[in-house]
Amino acid sequence: MIGGGQGAFIGAVHRLAAALDGQYELVAGAFSSNPDTSRATGQLLGLAPDRVYGSYEDLIAQEKARPEAERVQVISIVTPNHLHFAPAKLALESGFDVVLDKPMTFSLAEAKDLAAVVTATGRRLCLTHTYTGYPMVKEARQLVAQGTLGRIRKVYVEYPQGWLSKFEEGGENKQASWRTDPTKSGISGAMGDIGTHAFNLLEYVSGLRVEKLCADINTVVEGRRLDDDGAVLLRLSDGASGVLVATQVAAGEENNVRIRVYGEKGGLDWMQADANTLLVKWLDRPTEIWRTGGPSVGSYAAHNTRTPAGHPEGYLEAFANLYRNFALTLQAEQAGQPASPEALDYPSIEEGVRGMAFIENVIASGRSDQKWTDFTV
Amino acid sequence: MIGGGQGAFIGAVHRLAAALDGQYELVAGAFSSNPDTSRATGQLLGLAPDRVYGSYEDLIAQEKARPEAERVQVISIVTPNHLHFAPAKLALESGFDVVLDKPMTFSLAEAKDLAAVVTATGRRLCLTHTYTGYPMVKEARQLVAQGTLGRIRKVYVEYPQGWLSKFEEGGENKQASWRTDPTKSGISGAMGDIGTHAFNLLEYVSGLRVEKLCADINTVVEGRRLDDDGAVLLRLSDGASGVLVATQVAAGEENNVRIRVYGEKGGLDWMQADANTLLVKWLDRPTEIWRTGGPSVGSYAAHNTRTPAGHPEGYLEAFANLYRNFALTLQAEQAGQPASPEALDYPSIEEGVRGMAFIENVIASGRSDQKWTDFTV
Amino acid sequence: MIGGGQGAFIGAVHRLAAALDGQYELVAGAFSSNPDTSRATGQLLGLAPDRVYGSYEDLIAQEKARPEAERVQVISIVTPNHLHFAPAKLALESGFDVVLDKPMTFSLAEAKDLAAVVTATGRRLCLTHTYTGYPMVKEARQLVAQGTLGRIRKVYVEYPQGWLSKFEEGGENKQASWRTDPTKSGISGAMGDIGTHAFNLLEYVSGLRVEKLCADINTVVEGRRLDDDGAVLLRLSDGASGVLVATQVAAGEENNVRIRVYGEKGGLDWMQADANTLLVKWLDRPTEIWRTGGPSVGSYAAHNTRTPAGHPEGYLEAFANLYRNFALTLQAEQAGQPASPEALDYPSIEEGVRGMAFIENVIASGRSDQKWTDFTV
Amino acid sequence: MIGGGQGAFIGAVHRLAAALDGQYELVAGAFSSNPDTSRATGQLLGLAPDRVYGSYEDLIAQEKARPEAERVQVISIVTPNHLHFAPAKLALESGFDVVLDKPMTFSLAEAKDLAAVVTATGRRLCLTHTYTGYPMVKEARQLVAQGTLGRIRKVYVEYPQGWLSKFEEGGENKQASWRTDPTKSGISGAMGDIGTHAFNLLEYVSGLRVEKLCADINTVVEGRRLDDDGAVLLRLSDGASGVLVATQVAAGEENNVRIRVYGEKGGLDWMQADANTLLVKWLDRPTEIWRTGGPSVGSYAAHNTRTPAGHPEGYLEAFANLYRNFALTLQAEQAGQPASPEALDYPSIEEGVRGMAFIENVIASGRSDQKWTDFTV
Repeated sequence: MIGGGQGAFIGAVHRLAAALDGQYELVAGAFSSNPDTSRATGQLLGLAPDRVYGSYEDLIAQEKARPEAERVQVISIVTPNHLHFAPAKLALESGFDVVLDKPMTFSLAEAKDLAAVVTATGRRLCLTHTYTGYPMVKEARQLVAQGTLGRIRKVYVEYPQGWLSKFEEGGENKQASWRTDPTKSGISGAMGDIGTHAFNLLEYVSGLRVEKLCADINTVVEGRRLDDDGAVLLRLSDGASGVLVATQVAAGEENNVRIRVYGEKGGLDWMQADANTLLVKWLDRPTEIWRTGGPSVGSYAAHNTRTPAGHPEGYLEAFANLYRNFALTLQAEQAGQPASPEALDYPSIEEGVRGMAFIENVIASGRSDQKWTDFTV
Repeated sequence: MIGGGQGAFIGAVHRLAAALDGQYELVAGAFSSNPDTSRATGQLLGLAPDRVYGSYEDLIAQEKARPEAERVQVISIVTPNHLHFAPAKLALESGFDVVLDKPMTFSLAEAKDLAAVVTATGRRLCLTHTYTGYPMVKEARQLVAQGTLGRIRKVYVEYPQGWLSKFEEGGENKQASWRTDPTKSGISGAMGDIGTHAFNLLEYVSGLRVEKLCADINTVVEGRRLDDDGAVLLRLSDGASGVLVATQVAAGEENNVRIRVYGEKGGLDWMQADANTLLVKWLDRPTEIWRTGGPSVGSYAAHNTRTPAGHPEGYLEAFANLYRNFALTLQAEQAGQPASPEALDYPSIEEGVRGMAFIENVIASGRSDQKWTDFTV
Repeated sequence: MIGGGQGAFIGAVHRLAAALDGQYELVAGAFSSNPDTSRATGQLLGLAPDRVYGSYEDLIAQEKARPEAERVQVISIVTPNHLHFAPAKLALESGFDVVLDKPMTFSLAEAKDLAAVVTATGRRLCLTHTYTGYPMVKEARQLVAQGTLGRIRKVYVEYPQGWLSKFEEGGENKQASWRTDPTKSGISGAMGDIGTHAFNLLEYVSGLRVEKLCADINTVVEGRRLDDDGAVLLRLSDGASGVLVATQVAAGEENNVRIRVYGEKGGLDWMQADANTLLVKWLDRPTEIWRTGGPSVGSYAAHNTRTPAGHPEGYLEAFANLYRNFALTLQAEQAGQPASPEALDYPSIEEGVRGMAFIENVIASGRSDQKWTDFTV
Repeated sequence: MIGGGQGAFIGAVHRLAAALDGQYELVAGAFSSNPDTSRATGQLLGLAPDRVYGSYEDLIAQEKARPEAERVQVISIVTPNHLHFAPAKLALESGFDVVLDKPMTFSLAEAKDLAAVVTATGRRLCLTHTYTGYPMVKEARQLVAQGTLGRIRKVYVEYPQGWLSKFEEGGENKQASWRTDPTKSGISGAMGDIGTHAFNLLEYVSGLRVEKLCADINTVVEGRRLDDDGAVLLRLSDGASGVLVATQVAAGEENNVRIRVYGEKGGLDWMQADANTLLVKWLDRPTEIWRTGGPSVGSYAAHNTRTPAGHPEGYLEAFANLYRNFALTLQAEQAGQPASPEALDYPSIEEGVRGMAFIENVIASGRSDQKWTDFTV
């Protein structure tokens, strides 16, 4: 693991998610650019001291130098955005598969470069867009893909948070500080942090692609250096349209990402706050409550579920599904067998490039007086 | 009553709403431009045959000709949009107060003319934007007005319906036929029919005014002559922003209008499907469930509630609140006393003019390549 | 109307419910045993002074003395329990049809006497068990009656309130005072007031009859003279069983009566707080959300609905359904035609007798050391 | 681990829960009484073949024979009920700490014997009553314990399932077969399997003790050998009362355990289907929505939460909390330090004995004609 020292949020989540299914063992880390912090974190996690490194370069170089059977197999990179590209590139080029936190890179240019590295090295990359790991999100996608709702007409996706309602920067809240810092986050705050999740969820579930967008991007809290709020009109492929909302100043909201999709024959509604439920709506008959582990679900949801219906699976399980599917894919590859479609169903380099393109396009649209901005990659 | 013959939806609703509190008695009607239909409806409703008229002109003329104590006092106009202005003008000019269904007129020009008539005649007009009649919508407005949430930053309003997901025009569904007919509805379908409700709700609850808008207006169902779907980015007064969504092709949705407002200190969330609940959210403490008749509500909600907490009040009660407050206002006037602020709290000519301006501005924006369209009246 | 003077809760509800559909006009009343209060209430309601009476005896005698076309047709009795029997008997024997608030009488003996009066006079009586007036409660009953859920095995009914959590007696809360006073309420408080509603709902929806019961009846608040809490195990006809809970000391609860019924093939769940929804559950497929006005409902629900799906109908509409069906039945009778099954579907004397038997049996069981008490009438 | 071979449900859950926080490593197992199954399971789980045993006796004996640093530290026993006591006793007496699935033993007599073993050996035992591992259940307990709701008056607990609505025994459903088999489950089916969870939750949250009970115990499905349904009236310590419902024939229900507690000043409501929410109700102010990770929660909930508010934690996290707290307690002990109150907050031998007493008392009451049965241990 690279990043994820004490006090970081997402590093701990990665460790819990990787541990859940017993397919990963954490054996080495460069947890911080501060060697003391790195060492302390490694000790806390019970790692052998000689595999706790002071920099990602050391980690990659020294692990590569170990006998193949004794080195790490997958490297998780959980640093802030500006520290994604370099370690990911080095890891891939050094022969490691990579798990990388979102958004994939600091800029679209970096994302494209990384895509080229993936192609060149033939290594695999898993990008942790958590929300697509939920069983009922996978069910939603399968349902749309099978045509059950007819041609899709309308997609609404929203991601309201309230934790940046006040000026939190520069204080104890490290999350707030780096996520609003353009030198660490990139050109966008809310759109980069959570807008990309919403965008990814929209394209994943609907199977459609954003073709044009029209964005209203705001910095609501005085003194903030990046956007903390936005709303976007969308023109989607196949004639559909949509709305994407992401905000970090909806005071009192936690983290309730939600997607609604409407087709000719029906619609669906999923929200993270009730993650094990998918409402399936119909033109001429009652709405149905589809449930994780329930009698109606398809192969993708079933594959990503650990317990019977009525035993709620949450955020960590969704996160763990990304890790698990990535492991299953790598294991199949090692065994010289084709990975199952369900195992291959994890976000990867293509989603990462589109996510970075979303950030650049949405910020460009926000600054433009032109109504529609073409979505370009 | 003018309009509301057999088969009409909203006419029956007006009659139920007017009857609920015993402050109106239906004594005369011109229920249809077809005299037979008008007569049959009058008979069904138990009216004296000599007060069932074949045209609105007859109704107004002949009622005016009756002794003051024996004539109608208030005229409800529940015809399709293109038949709002003429009878309303005539009624006002003939000395009657008017209840008028929304949207107020066929065009903004008519709306302004009607405003002039109201001013000139000094009569009163109540416009039936039902959703502002709900106790917890009034509570929301009062809460915002008192500054409890701090300065408002963001408003989301949505009104999803699914009943026009297919081409319903020209068949048995009279509602579908006239509401999608530009000669009867005006220049807009969904935006005129339900978008105006959403717009009115937004301005009513937030106390803010729409200043600029950027609309994506669609006709989704092939062959339809007016819009059936739209999404609008909004710039609001006092630096706030918002999103308005209204659609009639969200297959499987009923009629679930919803508004969310976020300020510096907290937010609120109301939806018609759970109309007696107002979620009040706070930055630093748990969300609260405020309820109709509950211990927290203010004077406006209390005034508009008939039963103790736990006895759900619905759409007809909300509608009846408009009629009741209008009656209380007229009674106070007749008694030469000032009406209470709670009685005066019914939608009127100003809301009607702004509603028509919304329709014209939103359709203009939908057709424009320019990003932001100024909201002009 | 007999009873329902200023300050009374249920009298006002009766007036609203009767007014809604325009089938009743309030023309006479004996609103209080205090003639001044009666007069003042009559004036407030706009009645002719000569039809406002100082006692129920006067009302009945003098209305009977009027020409048939000018006298009241139906008498609503909305007094406390101890004042139900005498006016109801007199009204029936004087040739009037009667609407009577629940519980029907002060005692089971009175209830049986009243049943004999009904039989002897051939007049009709409507007992206002409101909850069976909700469209989705009627849908639930129809669904069970059609065998859709298979043989019924289990019924849970609950009615939690919190308004008597403190000693409220003797103060301004008149409701609290008479409802906890054995000289006015009868032998039971909570069980008589709301337990009877729960019992009625259970027998109405399930179509089953309580055959044995085992009750835990409590007076929780110190100083209270009647029960304010109870829970009852039930043995039902056809081998089913159930649980009934009614309490007035569930601090923070409003009035959320709920019923769940489970059969061999599925179950259903209805609660007043979400009155327009009926959850229909199945063994092998997803739960469905059936809605008032929705595509799945049967003839009884449809008959008792005034607005399209998505326009919530509430407590007053449910109450009004009782009045409306009673009126439709009387009108059919007057016209010499059979009333429709939907019109005849209002609670009447049989439900009243069983309700009073429930009160006596449940209090007896509460006092007994014997586990099961036979339900006797 | 003892038990938990392929096809078992709860064994896999234990493994996931133990893995989540990285405090346990599975190194040895006797997964089945069938040595082949045991071996195959061990291989699947990647264990060293020499630490996969054919019997629990072998496991315990051979692990004990290993050097202290190389042997297992904690033994998880996840077998059916009739195979709890013997391995638990042997493990404890051999110096191992034990995690044991519920209900603790086959009979109350065994439970008492096991309690004596615990006392005699000084080893620790963790009993996996999962539901008490949820953060908001811990919050509920803390809130009651602090007196926030005043003296507790009423407790309702319910555990409805539908999975045994048909005769499933003897087929492919192994769970159904052993759980309804008196030679494996003991004297009770539903009450032993899920009634004990409900009972444990009630005593845990309310802090009260069941003193008397009155049970209606049923076998609804023909041919079934143990109860599949029950409802119980409860007399609790400190003058409170309650109702416990547990059923496995509520067709269409998943696993929605729920508890409601009402005191003098307010109430609370928690249900597993919305596990991260605790509704806190008040006599005189709005209901509050307390959330996992939210601003209102106390030390116990916070200690048992891994992610910020809005990242739902589910069943596996709750289960993992038991394992984690047990590990923290053992680690503190090994370090010669006192474990924190939060770490010590896991179900143990006392809860196990009371749970077995509940089973015996509730079945006895179900068979009795006497109304109240004293709860005896």
